[in-house]
Amino acid sequence: MRILGIDPGYAIVGYGVVDYAKNNFAVVGYGAITTKAKTLFPDRLSVIYNDMLEIIDKYKPQRLSIEKLYFNTNSTTAIDVAQARGVIVLAAKQKGVEIHEYTPLQVKQAVTGYGRAEKHQVMEMVKSLLSLRAIPKPDDTADALAIAICDGHYSDSILRRSL
Amino acid sequence: MRILGIDPGYAIVGYGVVDYAKNNFAVVGYGAITTKAKTLFPDRLSVIYNDMLEIIDKYKPQRLSIEKLYFNTNSTTAIDVAQARGVIVLAAKQKGVEIHEYTPLQVKQAVTGYGRAEKHQVMEMVKSLLSLRAIPKPDDTADALAIAICDGHYSDSILRRSL
Repeated sequence: MRILGIDPGYAIVGYGVVDYAKNNFAVVGYGAITTKAKTLFPDRLSVIYNDMLEIIDKYKPQRLSIEKLYFNTNSTTAIDVAQARGVIVLAAKQKGVEIHEYTPLQVKQAVTGYGRAEKHQVMEMVKSLLSLRAIPKPDDTADALAIAICDGHYSDSILRRSL
Repeated sequence: MRILGIDPGYAIVGYGVVDYAKNNFAVVGYGAITTKAKTLFPDRLSVIYNDMLEIIDKYKPQRLSIEKLYFNTNSTTAIDVAQARGVIVLAAKQKGVEIHEYTPLQVKQAVTGYGRAEKHQVMEMVKSLLSLRAIPKPDDTADALAIAICDGHYSDSILRRSL
């Protein structure tokens, strides 16, 4: 089963593609969609949407796994992250990709076995589980791979949250 | 100049189309895109996006005017409103429609001359300015017309906020 993990954002959208079977993960590809601050916001949404369609066409994932958003930080940023998440989910929906969402706690729990794990512990586990030589950069990309791994772990579970 | 006003949401997206010239408004059409609570969220985004494309094709507005979001209420609802707003802005961008955004205070100020006007005062002014027999229902539709009127008022002003 091929899973596309997404760490949503509007300046950086991390993505990571993994193949999962029987508790084994193989990394297929990863990277980040980036948009510039001086670009008008509707154009940033357009870049994210178009790049998402390209990524889905390239990797043909069965599932998209994306982080659930919480608004307890900077709410202006959060509004724009949510708008970007909307066009990401739209792109996946239009391409017929199954969409699943997870809380940050679920991601940490699934990747490290511990919901309150530190960020660097999650990153190290991503590197280890995917047999990578180094932790992928930027952090958003490593986070996206963690979200994809989380979906693999939950894929056989009735606890998974379908959208 | 034809303006499409949008009151963003995910259960109800109000829209209102007006022609504006020399301080005069003529109503062209209005209504609401609605999605059902039992519909999966990605499907709701898809309905909103597709309906937006249809509305733009039907009315061919030069400008889209949309409310700026603030998150001081229910943040789960706000996240989903923002996601819906993302696909609305994307649809307008893809159709080459100029996008402008206004705060609720700017809308009240432009429609009634008073930034702290009550909701019913805004509604009455919409009815009056557009020579309607009754205030359009649902409220989201009347709000969308108010947002379109606001954009007309600001269209000659250097105060307008382009996106």
